[in-house]
Amino acid sequence: MEHNLWGTAEEGKPLSNSVKKLLGLLLGAKPTDAASRIPAAQIKLSEPRLTDGQLHALENIVGADYVSQDHEQRLRRSHGKSYPDLLDWRTDKVIAAPDAVIAPGTEAEVLEVLQYCSRERIAVVTFGGGSSVVGGVNPVRGEFAAVISLDVNRFTQLEDVDMVSALATLGAGLTGPAAELLLGEHGLQLGHYPQSFPYATIGGYAAARSSGQSSSGYGRFDSMVRALTVVTPQGIMEIGGPAPASATGPDLRQLFLGSEGTLGVITRVRVRIHPIPEVKRYEAFSFRDFKAGVAAVRAVAQQGTGPTVIRLSDDIESSINLSSTDKIGETNKGDSGCTCITMFEGSPEHAKSRHAETRAVLLAHGAKSLGEEPARQWEQGRFGAPMLRDALLDNHVICETLETATDWSNILKLRAAVVEALGVNLPTSPSIVMCHVSHIYPEGASLYFTIISGQSAAPHEQWWKAKAATCRAIVTHGGTISHHHGVGTDHRPYLESEIGSLGIKLLQAAKDTLDPVGIMNPGKLF
Amino acid sequence: MEHNLWGTAEEGKPLSNSVKKLLGLLLGAKPTDAASRIPAAQIKLSEPRLTDGQLHALENIVGADYVSQDHEQRLRRSHGKSYPDLLDWRTDKVIAAPDAVIAPGTEAEVLEVLQYCSRERIAVVTFGGGSSVVGGVNPVRGEFAAVISLDVNRFTQLEDVDMVSALATLGAGLTGPAAELLLGEHGLQLGHYPQSFPYATIGGYAAARSSGQSSSGYGRFDSMVRALTVVTPQGIMEIGGPAPASATGPDLRQLFLGSEGTLGVITRVRVRIHPIPEVKRYEAFSFRDFKAGVAAVRAVAQQGTGPTVIRLSDDIESSINLSSTDKIGETNKGDSGCTCITMFEGSPEHAKSRHAETRAVLLAHGAKSLGEEPARQWEQGRFGAPMLRDALLDNHVICETLETATDWSNILKLRAAVVEALGVNLPTSPSIVMCHVSHIYPEGASLYFTIISGQSAAPHEQWWKAKAATCRAIVTHGGTISHHHGVGTDHRPYLESEIGSLGIKLLQAAKDTLDPVGIMNPGKLF
Repeated sequence: MEHNLWGTAEEGKPLSNSVKKLLGLLLGAKPTDAASRIPAAQIKLSEPRLTDGQLHALENIVGADYVSQDHEQRLRRSHGKSYPDLLDWRTDKVIAAPDAVIAPGTEAEVLEVLQYCSRERIAVVTFGGGSSVVGGVNPVRGEFAAVISLDVNRFTQLEDVDMVSALATLGAGLTGPAAELLLGEHGLQLGHYPQSFPYATIGGYAAARSSGQSSSGYGRFDSMVRALTVVTPQGIMEIGGPAPASATGPDLRQLFLGSEGTLGVITRVRVRIHPIPEVKRYEAFSFRDFKAGVAAVRAVAQQGTGPTVIRLSDDIESSINLSSTDKIGETNKGDSGCTCITMFEGSPEHAKSRHAETRAVLLAHGAKSLGEEPARQWEQGRFGAPMLRDALLDNHVICETLETATDWSNILKLRAAVVEALGVNLPTSPSIVMCHVSHIYPEGASLYFTIISGQSAAPHEQWWKAKAATCRAIVTHGGTISHHHGVGTDHRPYLESEIGSLGIKLLQAAKDTLDPVGIMNPGKLF
Repeated sequence: MEHNLWGTAEEGKPLSNSVKKLLGLLLGAKPTDAASRIPAAQIKLSEPRLTDGQLHALENIVGADYVSQDHEQRLRRSHGKSYPDLLDWRTDKVIAAPDAVIAPGTEAEVLEVLQYCSRERIAVVTFGGGSSVVGGVNPVRGEFAAVISLDVNRFTQLEDVDMVSALATLGAGLTGPAAELLLGEHGLQLGHYPQSFPYATIGGYAAARSSGQSSSGYGRFDSMVRALTVVTPQGIMEIGGPAPASATGPDLRQLFLGSEGTLGVITRVRVRIHPIPEVKRYEAFSFRDFKAGVAAVRAVAQQGTGPTVIRLSDDIESSINLSSTDKIGETNKGDSGCTCITMFEGSPEHAKSRHAETRAVLLAHGAKSLGEEPARQWEQGRFGAPMLRDALLDNHVICETLETATDWSNILKLRAAVVEALGVNLPTSPSIVMCHVSHIYPEGASLYFTIISGQSAAPHEQWWKAKAATCRAIVTHGGTISHHHGVGTDHRPYLESEIGSLGIKLLQAAKDTLDPVGIMNPGKLF
């Protein structure tokens, strides 16, 4: 992944002329080319702060090949992929970069690094795929002398496979595709397909409670995790007992899932795996409006009809047809209503019966079938949407996503509140705010927003004002501050509203126990 | 529930003459009558230790009607329902009882009690239904001046129902039937049916990570919990965010689920609820042996065919036909093999499709259908089995249960190890060790053992030796020390083997944060 793009330059999707025209018309955007992208070599990074002695000591632990102060290496680990992260690359400001990048190869090395850094008061930011959109990987020095980026990308083994128990242990540095490739050799899959799938890593999925597009079928990533190996400054922990479920006290896995590098470094994750499905079935539907669609997908969740994927786009997203990114702005055939994509996987009989039951519920709620094609198109293009953001940014157009979740009884109100907060606070032009429901539960669902708006002359300030107003709206209107992006720096101010002051104290107590000096990803989460 | 029985005397199931004959033959048991049951009034309890001033102060907080030092009240809260608990009532030893029983009516009162007890160094044991079989409710004074039992039985409201989001808030003191009765008025059910259903409470289900007989359909209790109100000595916490799933940091609910009263008093639980199912379908099957049955139920779990209940008894349990407790020992019609009970609930279409898919998988694995009847019989008798224990105890026969869980790849080995450990360590006579699988997961399953054996002259010592050997066998052979009974005092020595020394430190850090004096259920869990 390029430091300043989602994906690589080759994967980029330049906007068609029709889209540029549309954006100019709608948002007053000024079409430009990729001229605002500053080459990596010209970007100014903070001066590295490690002493020669410290650098040498770290090299002694992991080997000189695995400690780097190279400009490009530091640059690539200085930011995640949020809109403000990407904006930064287009300014001439000095970017705060890690003082070094270190890549231990074993848990013993990680432990030694953490113990050394505790003694030397060097902050440690664990780095996997770098796809955080909430500031999770950005190096925060805090009160410490220096900050290093600890790369887990040497933990890339498929450690073991238990075919009988449907469990496998994966190295934390494996990306989604790399993990699926290794599992595929055994006829297995993980089934976790977040938008960041091509780049994000197994460790990051666990650390940030990722949720993938097939969560209806395979569950959130946190529900797939059987056990974790976590290296803390106080020692190496194997977390997760010998059974799939237990009453042997609190479930400590759930303290590390979502800990975002603040307690230790996740190096291995034991996960539930599945045979590669024999068949996939597809069907798309249309609802007259979002409310009708929500009622339908709620019934699917509560009756447990069993789709692998189900997502409902609101009117705007359906008409902009983000499901087919190649054709954005070109294929509005006068369809109205809300599109609902469904997919079903498993044995032929299993997929067929889940399809039939889901379909019957959707039709009973007023759905009209659109056939297979829109669902297949969505599947093909599903990892491509974020690439568009770079092209829009080239044209001074904000494109960012936000997400939350709430109960079904609150979902329409929360959606309205978020749309209003964004609309009111991105004032240079009309904004386009699209929304979809893509993760459903018996009690509620996620809401995923995509915002497209004209950039003001002070784009950072413009964005942070809108983001803060939106976060306040989410908290005020009963949403969680994040359903699957995590907390990082960006959502940190809102955590206490969700878990209370005693909740914060519990997290601090866990941190004090495992990381008494506080070097692990300071300034993040809480 | 009588202090010295499971259930009431009226519910008791005296053994038929044929059973008594069978037991004599098999175990050398000497048939007697209920003469060994000592009346409550004759049982000696420890002297209450609270000062008059302390008693008065507690009365000032909750009202004089809700503080008791009555013999019967103290007696009923001095023991749970494990075999050694029940043995104790048949000896003339002095029973350690709580120094008083207190029943606050509001969270504010609970908080005041906990703060007062922290100042006065009085230990507090939360009491719900008293059905713990691991020593969870037995009052342990520890280093403290006194110990009181805090009864949550005034928290018995259905606080609210959100029909749209399928959520309801239940008072922690509601028993299973009371909760279902209140939900039933709304056409709803919880669907949680542990063996202790008639007596155990909502708060206890949460505190000890209960799992019910319909866990395949409705999940374990911990998976039903959306939020908890917990009163800790440091304040009242609302735990569980505003959404069904979240990436907003660690999931702190999972620290309180399974905390067994060591962090605070659970007073309310917000849970996922369901419409009362339109239909129930039943079918029982037989497998030639346990191994074949295990392979079949594993396929059901991994293919997600969707039974509400599935349980597989081993050969011995199947032939003793514990599924029909009225007929124990009478109905061995020469059936051999292992019985598998299935139930399916929901809409007619849903239940039918899940039944068809499950049935097909079981038949493909060599099952023979036994029709509906054995499954219906099991459902009718399912809460009755523990009553038998009292009748057996009257006849000097040990009857106790033990449970664990492990991965599918380990399940036959673990079963053999537990059976051997029990067989070797209950040496007065041949033992009958029965086993069933009643909670299945894609990765593994629970193993539930019922042990029937002749009592030795020193029954406490006999039991603890066998129990310790069995726990060691479970730990050594890769099982969890408890799948759904919890830890309490009895499993406490084995917790560290499961979560490690850093895991214990994390629990202690959480306790120090919320209960700095350490008054909450000392001597339990860790």
